[in-house]
Amino acid sequence: MSLTSYIRTIPDYPQKGVQFRDITTLLHHPAGLKSAIDQLVEHYRDKKIDRIAVIESRGFLLGAPLAYLMGTGLVLIRKKGKLPAATIGEDYDMEYGTSTIEVHTDAISPGDQILLIDDLIATGGTAEAAIKLIRKCGGEVVECAFLVDLPELGGNERLQKIGCPAFALCAFEGE
Amino acid sequence: MSLTSYIRTIPDYPQKGVQFRDITTLLHHPAGLKSAIDQLVEHYRDKKIDRIAVIESRGFLLGAPLAYLMGTGLVLIRKKGKLPAATIGEDYDMEYGTSTIEVHTDAISPGDQILLIDDLIATGGTAEAAIKLIRKCGGEVVECAFLVDLPELGGNERLQKIGCPAFALCAFEGE
Repeated sequence: MSLTSYIRTIPDYPQKGVQFRDITTLLHHPAGLKSAIDQLVEHYRDKKIDRIAVIESRGFLLGAPLAYLMGTGLVLIRKKGKLPAATIGEDYDMEYGTSTIEVHTDAISPGDQILLIDDLIATGGTAEAAIKLIRKCGGEVVECAFLVDLPELGGNERLQKIGCPAFALCAFEGE
Repeated sequence: MSLTSYIRTIPDYPQKGVQFRDITTLLHHPAGLKSAIDQLVEHYRDKKIDRIAVIESRGFLLGAPLAYLMGTGLVLIRKKGKLPAATIGEDYDMEYGTSTIEVHTDAISPGDQILLIDDLIATGGTAEAAIKLIRKCGGEVVECAFLVDLPELGGNERLQKIGCPAFALCAFEGE
């Protein structure tokens, strides 16, 4: 079964005209979860990766099993105020206003090869901010990986423009 | 190395007098992450578990690898307004005011044997609400598992009172 067939579409969520791609139905199926994680492991098997950085909170769901299986540690990228030790932050524009993500200052060492994980790439705003944050700490983003790409929203091109390759396990066209 | 030695203590966070147990340092170490997950897999190896329910958002980090390794699916328990399809909710008291957690109405079927996962048990308020939520859906909570227990805050006894066994990989005494 293709990964897209495990994903449920919720029409008009969170607002009219948006087709929300709900990955909870994929996570709910043992075969869906296994297939997604196994494909990520296979894709990154021969790459040098020191740490997997995961974007709160759905990125945690994919990045944690991957880190376990690849034998790397995890770096949490969280919304402002959620990390308890010293942090460094990056602001980014949202549809309404701005938001900030943070990482612990001691979570990434200069030269670390980082794989960045989130569940879905739409416009790429959060991923771009996460890449900038990792680079501020001296880390190098090997690639960004997503379960779902919405290619018509241009996130992939946005990440390419800042020199970061992106990879997605499946895509929904026509957003 | 014991699990507690991977966990960093942040004094006076989020407020004066609190010793915050920061699991990000455990997650950051490949050996810390692996040891925690392997111990959970070993503990639940022979139990009948249909789904693993994970509490947003640090519970995602432990429950997702466990679900992958045990071949079960995941059920997300999230804060109000985060799940896109029809939900059922449960309110619980926080230090200031109340909060609500939700689950998708179709995520748990009557009779499902559920393992509930979160990172830490303190007073047990969130875990108790999650247990009640799972039971509302007809699920049976086999056990609640945590990485860290703070036994002096009484969470374990609170869960026992509502008939739910709890298990923690490590504990910090004297909170």
